[in-house]
Amino acid sequence: MCNTLHNTPIKRTEEILMFFEEFKLGQRFQCDPILMTSEEIADFATKYDPQPIHVDKEYAENSMFNGIISSGFLTLSKMWGQWIRLNKLGEEFIVGKGLDYVKFTAPVRKNDVLYTEVEVVNSTPTSNPSRGKVTLKFTMTNQYEEVVLLTEITVLLKTKESSNTKQLVTV
Amino acid sequence: MCNTLHNTPIKRTEEILMFFEEFKLGQRFQCDPILMTSEEIADFATKYDPQPIHVDKEYAENSMFNGIISSGFLTLSKMWGQWIRLNKLGEEFIVGKGLDYVKFTAPVRKNDVLYTEVEVVNSTPTSNPSRGKVTLKFTMTNQYEEVVLLTEITVLLKTKESSNTKQLVTV
Repeated sequence: MCNTLHNTPIKRTEEILMFFEEFKLGQRFQCDPILMTSEEIADFATKYDPQPIHVDKEYAENSMFNGIISSGFLTLSKMWGQWIRLNKLGEEFIVGKGLDYVKFTAPVRKNDVLYTEVEVVNSTPTSNPSRGKVTLKFTMTNQYEEVVLLTEITVLLKTKESSNTKQLVTV
Repeated sequence: MCNTLHNTPIKRTEEILMFFEEFKLGQRFQCDPILMTSEEIADFATKYDPQPIHVDKEYAENSMFNGIISSGFLTLSKMWGQWIRLNKLGEEFIVGKGLDYVKFTAPVRKNDVLYTEVEVVNSTPTSNPSRGKVTLKFTMTNQYEEVVLLTEITVLLKTKESSNTKQLVTV
């Protein structure tokens, strides 16, 4: 499954998108592994994080990291992309409220293969019957089974009821 | 200063990079404003957040947002890029420990002009005299003075002492 190691176009198939009620506490999802490339590290850093540790080979080789590392924002964005490509959210997704925390626990380098597990750690109905709030805990590990990133992200999802009644959802 | 509205290459001038001791509680920095373009929204979303609200014009126009919005991860990454381009961190920067929270408080759309203010909200020496921990609060607003993103990010910085002694810094 080498092709899963690169960004792939999303294939949205309606039957696997999930409403609020379908996310159960403790449920876990495995995202397809993804390869971190040196081109992507350089391209992202040039645009969004042009620090020497991400773009300057000589500086990075003489640093405590002994080489260029990925911007944490790239690692985070790639993680989210793989989760979205798992096709669990879709039109049932209303809005990302935010991230409760993000911890960069180990450096990510070119050619690392990154695995993401997503666990439902909170699921709360809201006062609006057409939507519910789900908190997902993301654990990303590399090919050496080191955890490289931890975060929890809370999203608002449509309920099945909202789908049945075609009720307009507003934030 | 229209050119400040786009990503510009970083110009690193050593004298304006800051050591741990130079960040004072309550100190504020203004980043150059930056323009969000539709091309960047599409490009980023295709790679890292291919949800219909970011990539499907027709879906987005019929949604509660009345049009395509930026991925929150793009907004966050652009914010960080502007902070790095302000040249306050540099080789004095050791490592980003993580984000304490991220709140997406309003949608960001193409042609929005985004302003970021950065405030030092915590500054703590560590047991290692060669480094200190600084927490920065980021507030990003759009051209209508709506807050679109709030986050706090903690970084480890080298101290002047580490610079004087050329002591090796390790995490």
